[in-house]
Amino acid sequence: MLSLLSLRARIEAGSLTPSQAVALTRAAIAEHEPSVRALVTSDPDPVVPEMGPLAGIAVGIKDIIDTAHLPTQMGSSIYTGWQPRADAPIVARLKALGAVPIAKTTTTAFAFIDPTETCNPRAPGRTPGGSSSGSAAAVAAGMLPLALGTQTGGSVIRPAAYCGVVGVKPSFRLLPTVGVKCFSWTLDTLGLFAATAADAAHALALIAGRPEIERPVGAPRIGLLLPEFCDAAEPEALGALDHARVAAEAAGASIRAFSLPDLFKEAFDQHATIQDFESAQALAWEYTTHHETLPPFLRAHLDMAQSIDAAAYDAARRIAHHARRSLRDILRNADIDVILTLSAPGFAPQGYASTGDSRFNRLWTMMGVPCVTVPVPGEDAPLGVQVIAGFGHDARALSAATFLEQTLAERSRDYG
Amino acid sequence: MLSLLSLRARIEAGSLTPSQAVALTRAAIAEHEPSVRALVTSDPDPVVPEMGPLAGIAVGIKDIIDTAHLPTQMGSSIYTGWQPRADAPIVARLKALGAVPIAKTTTTAFAFIDPTETCNPRAPGRTPGGSSSGSAAAVAAGMLPLALGTQTGGSVIRPAAYCGVVGVKPSFRLLPTVGVKCFSWTLDTLGLFAATAADAAHALALIAGRPEIERPVGAPRIGLLLPEFCDAAEPEALGALDHARVAAEAAGASIRAFSLPDLFKEAFDQHATIQDFESAQALAWEYTTHHETLPPFLRAHLDMAQSIDAAAYDAARRIAHHARRSLRDILRNADIDVILTLSAPGFAPQGYASTGDSRFNRLWTMMGVPCVTVPVPGEDAPLGVQVIAGFGHDARALSAATFLEQTLAERSRDYG
Repeated sequence: MLSLLSLRARIEAGSLTPSQAVALTRAAIAEHEPSVRALVTSDPDPVVPEMGPLAGIAVGIKDIIDTAHLPTQMGSSIYTGWQPRADAPIVARLKALGAVPIAKTTTTAFAFIDPTETCNPRAPGRTPGGSSSGSAAAVAAGMLPLALGTQTGGSVIRPAAYCGVVGVKPSFRLLPTVGVKCFSWTLDTLGLFAATAADAAHALALIAGRPEIERPVGAPRIGLLLPEFCDAAEPEALGALDHARVAAEAAGASIRAFSLPDLFKEAFDQHATIQDFESAQALAWEYTTHHETLPPFLRAHLDMAQSIDAAAYDAARRIAHHARRSLRDILRNADIDVILTLSAPGFAPQGYASTGDSRFNRLWTMMGVPCVTVPVPGEDAPLGVQVIAGFGHDARALSAATFLEQTLAERSRDYG
Repeated sequence: MLSLLSLRARIEAGSLTPSQAVALTRAAIAEHEPSVRALVTSDPDPVVPEMGPLAGIAVGIKDIIDTAHLPTQMGSSIYTGWQPRADAPIVARLKALGAVPIAKTTTTAFAFIDPTETCNPRAPGRTPGGSSSGSAAAVAAGMLPLALGTQTGGSVIRPAAYCGVVGVKPSFRLLPTVGVKCFSWTLDTLGLFAATAADAAHALALIAGRPEIERPVGAPRIGLLLPEFCDAAEPEALGALDHARVAAEAAGASIRAFSLPDLFKEAFDQHATIQDFESAQALAWEYTTHHETLPPFLRAHLDMAQSIDAAAYDAARRIAHHARRSLRDILRNADIDVILTLSAPGFAPQGYASTGDSRFNRLWTMMGVPCVTVPVPGEDAPLGVQVIAGFGHDARALSAATFLEQTLAERSRDYG
């Protein structure tokens, strides 16, 4: 994979110019894109700034995020050739930092669950996950050092885990979703894909203008969680979690068991109500005027979502609000820095009929807390473990993820 | 003015068809628009649904709200001729109810404070207020029975008060801001303009799918507030507030003095920090690529806003959050249904150099609470008083506003 920090180190040392770094990326795209199919459109002649802390970094932009220089097609023929007027603020920010938004990456239609044609470069024959399929696959294939995705259920953490890359879903609204096609305004969260946790921390710190995000916090105090409200995970995923626990403990992290009260099962169950009620409104124009053009999962979803009433939504919002406050207090009193848990139920599912299962992600999206998935060396296909911190403590989540990544790499070297 | 409920009553009685109702509106537009200049574009050949609870109701849409059938030009030459692909959900919802989004109404550029060319039909020579200038003026001139606006500081309540119409800023996110050009995602709130509070309550109940919003609650328990953290209002505005108090009390409302602790002065002062930090991001593309095209107030504002740092923003958000929770508890314990206070410091300012002052609105926008301004019979120019309820209690705010409107009309008949 292309490491953002490695590219930047070479640029800062003068051994690589930003233009050469982008040319490297374009060569990698030319090599891998025909088999991976992660990109929708690319800039054939990108402007490459010579200055800026992300100069030389080519970025993939999920194709529900507005770009002024490339079409934004939402993964749907309803938006074929659609050219927004303005860059979304997140794209303008990348440009201001010197980065090159070089390509739009594939997305399931409107970031729901109808699969794309993108392949999983690390697990042939398996889904790359969704909805940010192209961003995960492009980073996994070594085509791009950084890519943007969004998560409403599990659309950053799950594809990152399935593709063996790092995915970060920051605290809610740390990155503005302005100019990003809305599915659920309470849940939609912008996130990043990168080769390493250190890469992701560096990018997020710069994009958010918050240098503290990449400041290491030291060996983390970890609460190990197997959410009882989710169906059991596959043995391989549990094995990866145990592997990560052992590695972290050996490297000096403190580990204790962690569990959540019943309120969180209740909150977990309400994710769908919030998402469905809001998506029926957010996609009202598409539903009304292009019903037959919607892909089957999304059409059936929106058919169903029309019937959710305001009272059910209000009740769901109240439970979510209560759970967010409760989680803050629980994390404050638990003497832990982060939760360590599963990123997904197991390997990416075989075939391309589904984008996989977001049940280990939805609660955290609704809680608005920062989540990072870190790859754990697997056998048949990639696996990830998920590090979660309290709201606003993105630095803790990224520091613990970086710690975990390093300890896993060391064990892999020791025993590999 | 055109009353939505009167038009609907005639349609339901069979004495007016929806097409005839829309034709009435178009005739009023033809008569008044040349002098008022409230509209940017109009649909020359609108489709008029014959069915639906808002059939026959022509609606003005502030020109920062996306419409698939009319350009959306943001009050700025940067978006001249810009045609969105989709209707914003609020527009799709109006259409689903049978309403006819017939025209786009003038807005200050990106809903900031650079004045439009719109006149105040009720106070010649004075500003109609902003940023929803055209929506307020079009309803005031009797051109439209309903119009949409947005409020980030005071952009619904203030122009409604200045133009002598009813303005409603509902609870934050009761109406989705998806497809509405963003200035500040924490503050931007969709609102309505109508001839009467009963009209506004009826429209809001239908649009939000919440019938309880137009259910009368009875004579309200009122807390009378003169916010100490705002500079003093003009004598005419204080007179209007006193007039409303006397009328309400005579009609059976209970009135007590109400004040807010110092926390709310602190919160009031933080509105700018939140708005400025977010607007610098929301308009990053426009600022970077069209700096010289921005109008002077907005350009100077964004120049300044670049320097606000994340720490100041975080602190402002924390104070706002604390104040919102505190306001909820205060309103619960104060034994009042609504706050009654000023809508604006006084008459609309003379001339067209300014859109007036939002200091009696900004705190409430930040608190996310429902606000309704009700016209009070004035002499030189319109005045309004503002009714405010706790978050989610839009029904209380609208019921009290309707009560107040009726008692004011009765007194006006008695003594007028």
